Amino acid sequence: MGDADTSRLETFSDGVIAIAITLLILDVHVPHARTGTSFAHDLARQWPSYAGYMVSFLTVGIMWVNHHRMFKLIGRVDHPFLIFNVIFLMTIAAVPFTTALVAEHIRDPDTRTLAAVVYGGLMVAVAIMFNVVWRYAARGRRLLAPEASPDAVEAINRSYVLGPIAYGTATLLALANPWISLAIYAGLAVFYTLPGTTPRAEELLDEG
Amino acid sequence: MGDADTSRLETFSDGVIAIAITLLILDVHVPHARTGTSFAHDLARQWPSYAGYMVSFLTVGIMWVNHHRMFKLIGRVDHPFLIFNVIFLMTIAAVPFTTALVAEHIRDPDTRTLAAVVYGGLMVAVAIMFNVVWRYAARGRRLLAPEASPDAVEAINRSYVLGPIAYGTATLLALANPWISLAIYAGLAVFYTLPGTTPRAEELLDEG
Amino acid sequence: MGDADTSRLETFSDGVIAIAITLLILDVHVPHARTGTSFAHDLARQWPSYAGYMVSFLTVGIMWVNHHRMFKLIGRVDHPFLIFNVIFLMTIAAVPFTTALVAEHIRDPDTRTLAAVVYGGLMVAVAIMFNVVWRYAARGRRLLAPEASPDAVEAINRSYVLGPIAYGTATLLALANPWISLAIYAGLAVFYTLPGTTPRAEELLDEG
Amino acid sequence: MGDADTSRLETFSDGVIAIAITLLILDVHVPHARTGTSFAHDLARQWPSYAGYMVSFLTVGIMWVNHHRMFKLIGRVDHPFLIFNVIFLMTIAAVPFTTALVAEHIRDPDTRTLAAVVYGGLMVAVAIMFNVVWRYAARGRRLLAPEASPDAVEAINRSYVLGPIAYGTATLLALANPWISLAIYAGLAVFYTLPGTTPRAEELLDEG
Repeated sequence: MGDADTSRLETFSDGVIAIAITLLILDVHVPHARTGTSFAHDLARQWPSYAGYMVSFLTVGIMWVNHHRMFKLIGRVDHPFLIFNVIFLMTIAAVPFTTALVAEHIRDPDTRTLAAVVYGGLMVAVAIMFNVVWRYAARGRRLLAPEASPDAVEAINRSYVLGPIAYGTATLLALANPWISLAIYAGLAVFYTLPGTTPRAEELLDEG
Repeated sequence: MGDADTSRLETFSDGVIAIAITLLILDVHVPHARTGTSFAHDLARQWPSYAGYMVSFLTVGIMWVNHHRMFKLIGRVDHPFLIFNVIFLMTIAAVPFTTALVAEHIRDPDTRTLAAVVYGGLMVAVAIMFNVVWRYAARGRRLLAPEASPDAVEAINRSYVLGPIAYGTATLLALANPWISLAIYAGLAVFYTLPGTTPRAEELLDEG
Repeated sequence: MGDADTSRLETFSDGVIAIAITLLILDVHVPHARTGTSFAHDLARQWPSYAGYMVSFLTVGIMWVNHHRMFKLIGRVDHPFLIFNVIFLMTIAAVPFTTALVAEHIRDPDTRTLAAVVYGGLMVAVAIMFNVVWRYAARGRRLLAPEASPDAVEAINRSYVLGPIAYGTATLLALANPWISLAIYAGLAVFYTLPGTTPRAEELLDEG
Repeated sequence: MGDADTSRLETFSDGVIAIAITLLILDVHVPHARTGTSFAHDLARQWPSYAGYMVSFLTVGIMWVNHHRMFKLIGRVDHPFLIFNVIFLMTIAAVPFTTALVAEHIRDPDTRTLAAVVYGGLMVAVAIMFNVVWRYAARGRRLLAPEASPDAVEAINRSYVLGPIAYGTATLLALANPWISLAIYAGLAVFYTLPGTTPRAEELLDEG
């Protein structure tokens, strides 16, 4: 077990996340030629695709940053942990689908609510799986590295629990107004790029 | 030879498996806008795509876990082993095709039997190639690491032989009723996520 | 922090860049069968797709080479650096979209100017993000490895500033004549393949 | 320079090759539902897609094996070597396009000759770039590891020169009969899977 194990799991996870994030561009389509004027209009009309690309890329990118940080504290893996990670990756890898769903339906008042709910619902699932993966490893320090600081573990416990709550709230708000929930999805992505919103790496490991 | 070799093979295999597993989402399509009601219906109607995505993601994910575990026991590679691995990857990388085949045809009584047979047939091929890769390496301990425990080798021998039998049986059952075989494919994916269904990692290597 | 951190960031970045560069081929389409003569004509008619594939592959490939070289000088990462890298990758991963845009519209006098402007605009964004990532790390030697030579840092500072200027100029020229700007995009890709156009690796690190 | 450099180049190359090989499945399409009988017929009718998938997967897989083996002898990288590798990857990453071209046109007597020529022409380009990458590194042992055996270098020199000749001949034969050249492409893929057709790894490095 040991380092080699966590390292191959990290490589595989990085691969799946890198592919999912890069596949997002496949749902930004090239408008076909018409006249010069309508082409500019057609390109501009696709703004939901560009916005969806940017929000989802940032969101998944931040999840990668967090996954990366979490693994600093993991010292070894076991079978359930690998399986939980596979299920976590299954939720992340579905983000291109829900992103395309929102981008295609955001202008349609009849369908955009459901699209926003599905997008948020998947994010809730991702956030829950993040908690499952982490809590399975951290419960009784089951898979933690010996040098993982108890304070950092506690800080991550507190920080991760906010994910499902934030995305769950935004998802429910879509039932009232899908634009609000989409704005929250975007806001959460931007919020987590700010320094200080996640435990600082320097604090994760004990010095001694 | 030695570690650098098995490590580059593992990286390449992880890459192919990670890409194949992530491409699965490309076959979950966004239904086009109609009315609000029919959109919910259209989304729900696609359940075979979601089910196929989940079952195949889990199945390929577990194959990755097993591949990962197998390589703990491999100490070096040679030309035939590399080639057998390439052929193994060729079968894994085709899973998105058979998954889409089943998802698109599962509701059509005229075509779903054949779709289920093709899906199962590919899984039999994957399971056979797993055995070929492993048995080539394990025969006379040809490529095993010195510290690979003989008991673990024996346990893997026994465990891997079940794969082609289980998938072969499910494939044949599709001729009687494709739903039964699809249920078995899903059941096998869930079964292998349970702890204790594969040799535990701690038992793979000799302590001494 | 330290090596493990920069190494996982490099692996993730390499993954995204490798996927973006390989997805470029998905926009080279197979013409459908007509008669033998028209098939040759159809294949030849697609030259903008082949040219776009080659120019963008080379351009992104050189960006990978530069990213690779830059990381020789980086000794550790922090949260803003990771986020800047994610945004840098977001720009790189969009290149298949702008490449397809140019390839599809290059023969249409009404739309090709805008397509060339969008392609160049994204390249300006990539070049700016390259500067942001690098300057954030290099400012006050914030994240530099101790052995990074001050002369190399200075040389990279000077060399990177040219990117946004060159691509910005080419983008503006598209307003006068899109062919000129496309020729410059291709010329820049070829130019950077020449030895001596980027600081030599041997000069990056202090000997002592 | 040194190991870290060749290792990041290997990771990037493995990534591109793994993606290109896995994207091959995207050109195997799911036939739409008609009646039960015609579905079996439709699936069978797609044999060129399956054959193309298998031949190209095997061919690119063997190229990966050879690239892997070549890098055992490479001790460091420089700018031109990185660029030559990027161009080599550009040719490999185009294989899904030429494979789809052949698969779609193989049954059309008017277009299959040209499709077979384009497929073979790309393989000639891949084989030439393999020689360029290798010969640039090996010329005067420019980038070779000190322990690379001169006999192994000589053996690779001789072995690589056959690639462009074999694929070039098969490509020219397509003008007479495309089936013959396609059979040779398949035969070459199978031939290189046989042990003894490439220098054995044990012979690559000096013992001393």
